[in-house]
Amino acid sequence: MNTLKFHDGVLTIIDQTKLPLKLEYIDCYDYKRVIQAITRLEIRGAPAIGAATGYALLLAAREYKELPLDDFLVKLDMAKKEIAAARPTAVNLFWALDMVWKKSVLAGKTVDDILTALELAANRIFALDIAANKAMGRYGASVLPERCSVLTHCNAGALATCGWGTALGVIREAFLQGKIDIVYADETRPLLQGARLTAWELARDKIPVRVITDSMAGWVMKKGLVQAVITGADRIALNGDTANKIGTYTLAVMAKRHSIPFYIAAPRSTIDFTINTGDDIPIEERGEDEVICFAGVRSAPNGVEVFNPAFDVTDNELITGIITEYGVLYPPFDKAIYKIQNKKTEEE
Amino acid sequence: MNTLKFHDGVLTIIDQTKLPLKLEYIDCYDYKRVIQAITRLEIRGAPAIGAATGYALLLAAREYKELPLDDFLVKLDMAKKEIAAARPTAVNLFWALDMVWKKSVLAGKTVDDILTALELAANRIFALDIAANKAMGRYGASVLPERCSVLTHCNAGALATCGWGTALGVIREAFLQGKIDIVYADETRPLLQGARLTAWELARDKIPVRVITDSMAGWVMKKGLVQAVITGADRIALNGDTANKIGTYTLAVMAKRHSIPFYIAAPRSTIDFTINTGDDIPIEERGEDEVICFAGVRSAPNGVEVFNPAFDVTDNELITGIITEYGVLYPPFDKAIYKIQNKKTEEE
Repeated sequence: MNTLKFHDGVLTIIDQTKLPLKLEYIDCYDYKRVIQAITRLEIRGAPAIGAATGYALLLAAREYKELPLDDFLVKLDMAKKEIAAARPTAVNLFWALDMVWKKSVLAGKTVDDILTALELAANRIFALDIAANKAMGRYGASVLPERCSVLTHCNAGALATCGWGTALGVIREAFLQGKIDIVYADETRPLLQGARLTAWELARDKIPVRVITDSMAGWVMKKGLVQAVITGADRIALNGDTANKIGTYTLAVMAKRHSIPFYIAAPRSTIDFTINTGDDIPIEERGEDEVICFAGVRSAPNGVEVFNPAFDVTDNELITGIITEYGVLYPPFDKAIYKIQNKKTEEE
Repeated sequence: MNTLKFHDGVLTIIDQTKLPLKLEYIDCYDYKRVIQAITRLEIRGAPAIGAATGYALLLAAREYKELPLDDFLVKLDMAKKEIAAARPTAVNLFWALDMVWKKSVLAGKTVDDILTALELAANRIFALDIAANKAMGRYGASVLPERCSVLTHCNAGALATCGWGTALGVIREAFLQGKIDIVYADETRPLLQGARLTAWELARDKIPVRVITDSMAGWVMKKGLVQAVITGADRIALNGDTANKIGTYTLAVMAKRHSIPFYIAAPRSTIDFTINTGDDIPIEERGEDEVICFAGVRSAPNGVEVFNPAFDVTDNELITGIITEYGVLYPPFDKAIYKIQNKKTEEE
């Protein structure tokens, strides 16, 4: 199972809106279809979106490859802007686009050179993501107690990445080490990524999973049923403030009240080194049907208003540690983040 | 619109499982149908359930009225026990049954006497509930600021009572006084009473309402969008610990973090004078389909576990005030509750 896979000039992705009822794939032959897939959440999860944007740029480049270099570059730049506008909160999207751009367009002198470099760079992001997840898994598992049950929110699993997962990567590794009794999966309204995707992934791997509504998480903590909370992230500010799926902030507050460690698992590409605090993270608001329709049936009467922010921001003081591929960062996060910002790595 | 109405030997109730798509009624000709309606949540809300159980006992008595007194009493006692077992958490059910029993069976000497007294007592509970709601509305509205937006959870409205509502009674009265800008209604998973019932009630009354998922409530508070939280209750212990719809505890913690007053609105019949703390309140656990099915469509894959507690308990220290028909109770709640326990009123 691959969340996304580029082969023979086509980006094939799992249609995540169909899970868990059906495992179906979408073949994206051009970059506009990739943008559509991101907007419709057929592919979602910050790292998976990041990798998809690299391939979207590659598809655009292949579409324009017969043009003279100047025209090619103008068209590619327009495509890049369109891709960047697909979703506003996850920073991996911008990071992946910029990295691919730097490694190809800024480095190549001919269309052919650029095309070759672009494919290499997009594949590199894919490979780096899986490697980062495996590293996060090891670092994250090491901070969990010998036996524990954990709670997670939304889907930060193989489906949200190029494979293995961030928060679920940690859980997978800890499970392999015999540490995990059961995983509580918040269903994660409005789009139920927890019930649909996290439960599906974990059940496939035979990791025991118990689905709850988001409103039950606080009570589960009060009852002493979980010993750690681990979620992914869509964007992390320099001070450690973290944007993630709506409801994460509330989980972190509840974890703090019950002295349960609250971890974020995210690759360095989720850190936005240009913003100081969470106040600067734009929060995507989505359509009202996500909240008041399910399976085509309305849950609320006509004429009511809906508020549908897709993310919230968790204050750094609520976060026990940020699990990255460079190790677990602890407060004060600004210092810890500064250290990994300045670590030169092969992707740069 | 009446949540429940007894007329010509029949208890007619609104089928709340059909709202907001259809306004349909169910005629209950015998007490077993009332029990079924309570179990299936066709009628729900602690005060409404309380009133329904009074009428259920009346229906049982009418069914057995041709029997000799001794047999009649044996049958009626069995019916009472069945009715009492319908749902475990809401204490109004037991209170209403006991009150009706005391006023009729314990007071009457013939089957006819008992029948007459029983109908009077059941009607009295109905009337007292509406009067209590109106009084709560006035007391509750008086503690809200001149202009505010409020957040509520589940449905503590006309549909949860014999009319007007507890938490929504306060909101209705405050709206009439020009105090309310907008009501944020948590959709209230798993059964969506907020989206389905609260939004429907408020929209009918032209009170502005904005539906959010439960996971958004903490963020709404952080963004400063609400100035008070008001919910109903299913059972209140002597120390003020309060059982209410799952998710209420989390709301109260979030309200405290943001220095937003958190009020419970509930009639005295919701107080269980036999238990000292919330630890003694039994929490009903319901079936897994409520969590992982919606409109007949599964949200989670086969083979996953589900945890579905229908209620949680909010610690007294998180509650700003308990709005009752005798006024607003403030901490220390044990003292305040003791005072209204010993106030003799016409219902006793």
